[in-house]
Amino acid sequence: MDNAVYILGINGSPRSYGNTCRLLRIALEVAKREGAHTKLINLYDYDIKPCLGCLADIQEACRYPCVIDDDMKQLYDEILKADGLIIATPIYWFGVSGILKNFIDRLTALENMIFVEGRSWLEGKVLGVIAVGNDSGDIEALSHIVLALNFMGLIVPPWSLACTTERNPLSNENMVLEAANVGRCVVIMAKLVKNAGICWYSKDIKELSKIKNRVMTEAERDFQRVRDERLKIITKLLKDSYETLE
Amino acid sequence: MDNAVYILGINGSPRSYGNTCRLLRIALEVAKREGAHTKLINLYDYDIKPCLGCLADIQEACRYPCVIDDDMKQLYDEILKADGLIIATPIYWFGVSGILKNFIDRLTALENMIFVEGRSWLEGKVLGVIAVGNDSGDIEALSHIVLALNFMGLIVPPWSLACTTERNPLSNENMVLEAANVGRCVVIMAKLVKNAGICWYSKDIKELSKIKNRVMTEAERDFQRVRDERLKIITKLLKDSYETLE
Amino acid sequence: MDNAVYILGINGSPRSYGNTCRLLRIALEVAKREGAHTKLINLYDYDIKPCLGCLADIQEACRYPCVIDDDMKQLYDEILKADGLIIATPIYWFGVSGILKNFIDRLTALENMIFVEGRSWLEGKVLGVIAVGNDSGDIEALSHIVLALNFMGLIVPPWSLACTTERNPLSNENMVLEAANVGRCVVIMAKLVKNAGICWYSKDIKELSKIKNRVMTEAERDFQRVRDERLKIITKLLKDSYETLE
Amino acid sequence: MDNAVYILGINGSPRSYGNTCRLLRIALEVAKREGAHTKLINLYDYDIKPCLGCLADIQEACRYPCVIDDDMKQLYDEILKADGLIIATPIYWFGVSGILKNFIDRLTALENMIFVEGRSWLEGKVLGVIAVGNDSGDIEALSHIVLALNFMGLIVPPWSLACTTERNPLSNENMVLEAANVGRCVVIMAKLVKNAGICWYSKDIKELSKIKNRVMTEAERDFQRVRDERLKIITKLLKDSYETLE
Repeated sequence: MDNAVYILGINGSPRSYGNTCRLLRIALEVAKREGAHTKLINLYDYDIKPCLGCLADIQEACRYPCVIDDDMKQLYDEILKADGLIIATPIYWFGVSGILKNFIDRLTALENMIFVEGRSWLEGKVLGVIAVGNDSGDIEALSHIVLALNFMGLIVPPWSLACTTERNPLSNENMVLEAANVGRCVVIMAKLVKNAGICWYSKDIKELSKIKNRVMTEAERDFQRVRDERLKIITKLLKDSYETLE
Repeated sequence: MDNAVYILGINGSPRSYGNTCRLLRIALEVAKREGAHTKLINLYDYDIKPCLGCLADIQEACRYPCVIDDDMKQLYDEILKADGLIIATPIYWFGVSGILKNFIDRLTALENMIFVEGRSWLEGKVLGVIAVGNDSGDIEALSHIVLALNFMGLIVPPWSLACTTERNPLSNENMVLEAANVGRCVVIMAKLVKNAGICWYSKDIKELSKIKNRVMTEAERDFQRVRDERLKIITKLLKDSYETLE
Repeated sequence: MDNAVYILGINGSPRSYGNTCRLLRIALEVAKREGAHTKLINLYDYDIKPCLGCLADIQEACRYPCVIDDDMKQLYDEILKADGLIIATPIYWFGVSGILKNFIDRLTALENMIFVEGRSWLEGKVLGVIAVGNDSGDIEALSHIVLALNFMGLIVPPWSLACTTERNPLSNENMVLEAANVGRCVVIMAKLVKNAGICWYSKDIKELSKIKNRVMTEAERDFQRVRDERLKIITKLLKDSYETLE
Repeated sequence: MDNAVYILGINGSPRSYGNTCRLLRIALEVAKREGAHTKLINLYDYDIKPCLGCLADIQEACRYPCVIDDDMKQLYDEILKADGLIIATPIYWFGVSGILKNFIDRLTALENMIFVEGRSWLEGKVLGVIAVGNDSGDIEALSHIVLALNFMGLIVPPWSLACTTERNPLSNENMVLEAANVGRCVVIMAKLVKNAGICWYSKDIKELSKIKNRVMTEAERDFQRVRDERLKIITKLLKDSYETLE
């Protein structure tokens, strides 16, 4: 692959012709015009089994490749090649579709490499998310994906989240523009970090214990000053309150 | 101010000596050593009135400076100067403290500049968040801040969110390291975007209506192919089901 | 079945020996001693396929029995017999396990009977939830289940939600007590409503359009009084603000 | 007060003429016709200061009456008299308004009576919630209120949550019906529990340690059976995986 960034679109809706997937396609098309290679994956075409939670028994047992022998194997490899993911979900009961939840749970095998070799294999990739439904819950659905994937090491650029509960979002120019900006902003960020070669998480922060000790000393000093004041108020209150009860 | 980035720490806890603020101080101290200027603001030292929701009456009425004459005036100016915000909150009922919610609601005056002059005044700033409590709800609290501020235009780098419900988080080396990485990653990202001079949101995506039309055509084609299949299944079911009821 | 209430325990964890299922068993055991019949179902023993979202194509196509021919058929029948559900989930990425999300999505076939025959088949059943993890996100997980199932028509009694992120929750007496109270409170409520024979949702609220009109008239009156005041402030601000910009 | 239930409406919107408050008024009006006494409180008419988090210093310091001397004093007394609360909020950044968050945080003084005298003073009251906005986030806002108040001891009946992001919800008959059912269902439940005189939380569950021990024994048995199997799979995988790396 050349120097271009590679953006993977993940469709969590069973309806490849529906609004969720349409907005995702707009984002991917714009990404392509911004210079990215793109690919669209319909999760419903894959057999994705539920996570077995191995790490609750042995932390290091959860690793790439996952114990479960199913279609995630192919998906892991696509994800590892990608510089960015744009995940689109229908809104099912104020959350992502069940198959997408299985997909997210199974990404743990890449994230948990932290415990195997010190670094999440998803660190520094870029995230875009699109959530579409006929009913409420779009922010909940976005929120779930964003928090989970940011905690796995992904970057969330500005305007990379789009959601709607309108019946015909493509007839709303503003909504189309939002989906387009998801594609645009994910690519801008992916290019920015690709060239910078950043190592984000550091286990080796200089003088961290010295910093911690200074912060604790300062906090203690504040504590003496502020807390005496607060305890006086609280204690007085407790006294008054007991007297009221008597 | 020189070329260094400026990171503003916002403490939403009433206890400046508590764990929320301690972890925030660690993040800021690390940010400083990464070359940033920093400043810590205790929200409880400011009078922040509740948002009046002006934009529900007149969209463009919500703008900088906000109608309400209180201490947010000073805070707006600090925020506008900052390249990054690290917001720390105690966990109050599975969410942010009320004063921090007022602060977030009042940031609308900067975000809503979208409707006044086409761009959020918060676009491209970098976000870190720390949530600390003695009880559950840390992810809910983080989630609220992250979604709101990303939708205002902020960037969320990897490892820039830290949370805990432990009694003594500073005695847990891992937790201290997480707070440190919040400071580190916010600064790395702030430097990266500061020099790049990016204009994130674009109202002017080339050939967007052409893209939209192509996507709709493709979706229609899929629709014919897939939906016939689906309708057949659904219709059969409905028929069977009516027969069952008879 | 006699007059006793029937409480169904749903275990969404793959580890039937783990803490999630242990706390669920405590809740069920207490329910039994409060006079309920109980049954425990391990979702991982069932094949539960992802929802196909039929209702996005045809609202009435989503109904009991669901189009998909899998093990949900048996589960639907157990649920229909139950007066209460106690759902237990491990915390996977700040949410429920993927299999449990599939289970929840598939409950739509019972809830959507609203559109088929005017009433959710889940209305008036009682809900308890237990969420257990080694990491943050317990409230998010609870929250997802509670909102979805309450919107399907279930009742949420006091103290019927329990969650923890402790390593050994069973060694914490308080936590054991919380799980026990989930069982207790679900049974108390189930008995209360079983005998009352309540029809909750009513399409036929007396004089509703009259009520609506009165409320609108009152609101208009308030609007004149309050909004003039608000517009004056906002308009003044806009004027000042334009002058500032000049 | 006679035998009728008393339902308190809490309006968290600054616009008493707006849609949030209109839907709340419909709910209260229906509640009245179901036989309840009702009262509407506009939070913006009250001075509600942010919670000081006293309980983080001394658990028992947080109690009724709260240390802070402001208008919550009056509100506490209204709440204590009420059998049910219907809380209405505008959607501010995917959550409740800041003043309503302050209100919720300050309810801790009633809930924390658990630590003072063994019982939440909010236990067994009934909750209804209405969330209205022009933008996404209604479920998030509902969710925040529901989780917090259910954990304080309130009951959530079916159809007692209503939300919308429509511009003119009152012109949608279905939405008006939903608001009406909030009023109806809160009253039905309030009557049901008022007469039943239930003590929900029990510290004294019979033979709880015996139950716990039995559950642990059973889990251990399962553990031997299932976990051996699982460990075998995981260990094999780890072995294969190491060999792959070599």
